[in-house]
Amino acid sequence: MAYPVSPLASPFPDLPPIAGAVPRVARAGYKDWDRCDLTYVELDAGTTVAGVFTRNVCCSSEVELGRENLRQGQARALVVNAGNSNAFTGYRGREAVEQIMEQVAAHIGCPREQVFVSSTGVIGVPLPKDKAREGVAKALTAQPCSWEDAAQTIATTDTFAKGATATAVVGGKTVSISAIIKGSGMIAPDMATMLGYLFTDAAVEPAFLQQCLSAANVRTFSCITVDSDTSTSDTVLAFATGKAGNAPLASFDSPGADAFAAAVHDVCRQLAHLVVRDGEGASKFIAVTVTGAVSDESARKIGLAIANSPLVKTAIAGEDANWGRVVMAVGKAGEAADRDKLSIGFGGVWAAREGLPLADYDEAPVAAHLKGQDVTIEVDLGLGDGQATVWTCDLTHGYISINADYRS
Amino acid sequence: MAYPVSPLASPFPDLPPIAGAVPRVARAGYKDWDRCDLTYVELDAGTTVAGVFTRNVCCSSEVELGRENLRQGQARALVVNAGNSNAFTGYRGREAVEQIMEQVAAHIGCPREQVFVSSTGVIGVPLPKDKAREGVAKALTAQPCSWEDAAQTIATTDTFAKGATATAVVGGKTVSISAIIKGSGMIAPDMATMLGYLFTDAAVEPAFLQQCLSAANVRTFSCITVDSDTSTSDTVLAFATGKAGNAPLASFDSPGADAFAAAVHDVCRQLAHLVVRDGEGASKFIAVTVTGAVSDESARKIGLAIANSPLVKTAIAGEDANWGRVVMAVGKAGEAADRDKLSIGFGGVWAAREGLPLADYDEAPVAAHLKGQDVTIEVDLGLGDGQATVWTCDLTHGYISINADYRS
Repeated sequence: MAYPVSPLASPFPDLPPIAGAVPRVARAGYKDWDRCDLTYVELDAGTTVAGVFTRNVCCSSEVELGRENLRQGQARALVVNAGNSNAFTGYRGREAVEQIMEQVAAHIGCPREQVFVSSTGVIGVPLPKDKAREGVAKALTAQPCSWEDAAQTIATTDTFAKGATATAVVGGKTVSISAIIKGSGMIAPDMATMLGYLFTDAAVEPAFLQQCLSAANVRTFSCITVDSDTSTSDTVLAFATGKAGNAPLASFDSPGADAFAAAVHDVCRQLAHLVVRDGEGASKFIAVTVTGAVSDESARKIGLAIANSPLVKTAIAGEDANWGRVVMAVGKAGEAADRDKLSIGFGGVWAAREGLPLADYDEAPVAAHLKGQDVTIEVDLGLGDGQATVWTCDLTHGYISINADYRS
Repeated sequence: MAYPVSPLASPFPDLPPIAGAVPRVARAGYKDWDRCDLTYVELDAGTTVAGVFTRNVCCSSEVELGRENLRQGQARALVVNAGNSNAFTGYRGREAVEQIMEQVAAHIGCPREQVFVSSTGVIGVPLPKDKAREGVAKALTAQPCSWEDAAQTIATTDTFAKGATATAVVGGKTVSISAIIKGSGMIAPDMATMLGYLFTDAAVEPAFLQQCLSAANVRTFSCITVDSDTSTSDTVLAFATGKAGNAPLASFDSPGADAFAAAVHDVCRQLAHLVVRDGEGASKFIAVTVTGAVSDESARKIGLAIANSPLVKTAIAGEDANWGRVVMAVGKAGEAADRDKLSIGFGGVWAAREGLPLADYDEAPVAAHLKGQDVTIEVDLGLGDGQATVWTCDLTHGYISINADYRS
């Protein structure tokens, strides 16, 4: 955590322990640094798992093997390496991941497919097997630690540790979710892969857990961007230990399923926002809400075109209500839009309505809104019922300093 | 031209006069500045025209009317307004363009469809009709000027005037092309729309002129990017006055057609490179060559994913041979790629071959190459015969300063 803490940082919340999920950390020494960099979470037998992964076709072996492991739906352990992403390292990288899976499986006495591994850090350097073996051995026998320790250990260029929690009442039982994440680009390779982990004591069938996670993903992680660059290693996994004693959730027909799905969505949204709040060089948190699109997916794509536009992001950094740049971004998105039905606003104040600048547009409240840390942009397309909100940060000199000075 | 001249600037070349195409400039006073900002080029009867326009769906009235005018294939005049893009101004903006078309058509005595108008500058402010009328009146009777004067007058945030020329022998006659362009983002609205104009004394049928321009466009203007933001007003027009006395070119079967098409391509490539060389904040000119793709179009899309990646562009700014970021950009492009066949190089030196970092990779020559102003990135996908080269500039603090400090 070499950079100054983000001005948008949040304090780490109180995350409750999750019965059946015990985190431990150790020093593998993947880089020349004086900190723990290997996280191990042991999961009780019967834990179910769901996951979503990067769509980058140059993905890491960790992502490939994670996708394969997911098919059997059960998990006994999670291992996260920080400091080396092990991406683009061919068969040597894959062997290192398989070695970790086998080492942990032998210790627990489970199939190796139930051990999930993630790595984050520099691309193109095979994960050193000796350091991994020693680090895992230390972690297997280390004292249990807090979720905050685990959140710090999975971090790389993050400037603050990130966690979120929610509860739901399921069939009369209160279930908890504790979750951690790292990333300061969603969306930035090398040292800024997004890795997120949710742990719950709820009993949930794997298929329904996947359904909840995938649905939440579409409206949370898939709606954030720092710099439009999609990592080779992005991973979010959800583990359900079943210790809360509820009747297992199998579908939305199960009592409490809605409450549980809402809690998963809530936690994912919190985590996604934390990543944006630690966006490289961020000084403002920006929510872009698009309404009146032909579909929700179209609204999301237009929102991301705005949120990824360097000209929109630099305008917000400069506290400039430059709605012409928003018009440009809507038009380049490749989605249905009609210039003469388009309305644009900032902080809830319309600057242009139905294709024309407002004659009585008062810029004073908008200028005041843009001076704050939390900025909203509203776009109404006037075409249909589709809507979406996406989140991003501004583009500042800090981003250039971090990424032009960083040496691979 | 408020910013320091780009370190990548080229001197303005000697552009020959084109018989039948006479440029003039005047002061319309679209902004509070002390310079000419209205360009008028009168074209002799019989001049043919071709054009390519932005695909931004929020395009300006100038672009809409230009597309319509193009259908009849003849041109008698070009008017370019600098300082106001007239985009997103609804019916009021359209009326201003129609007024200019009618004023010029009445002066020349031609159908208004033969008057082409472009505007570049701030979005959302209707072009003031009174200033336009007075400016056009002055320009119609002004002394003819040089192509360099015209290039300076169409410019806005450009830091240097841009022109290019080429000749071809067509049926025993030497024909010339003189061309000017403005833009310092291809691809940046407000004050950085790309507008380009080619004038030739060759006799060319409109359909074949369009064929030549469209073909050149795909491999030149469509292969450059400064910041991924597509303007609402981008326009390139080609005018052929027919004064060279060659037999009119109607297709590739006409003698000299290949030479003419090559000259058009050559001029378009020169113009496209000049825009990148004036990219906002640029300190390095980057050529990305992609080979081994499944198609040329796939190669172009992968090249643009690399050229638009803020992480790749900041790495080059930092003179960092960070090929992991190139891997990431290839993978996120959404095109066919196989991580284990991918090779990446800088300045002609491979850093990774077929999915693995090179064991004997010598970074010294690459580091020396990256210190220069002209940088090349080579990507071989190992899949097919598709190839493309795209051009961009690096992403520096200069870009942030220009765009975060600019006030709409």
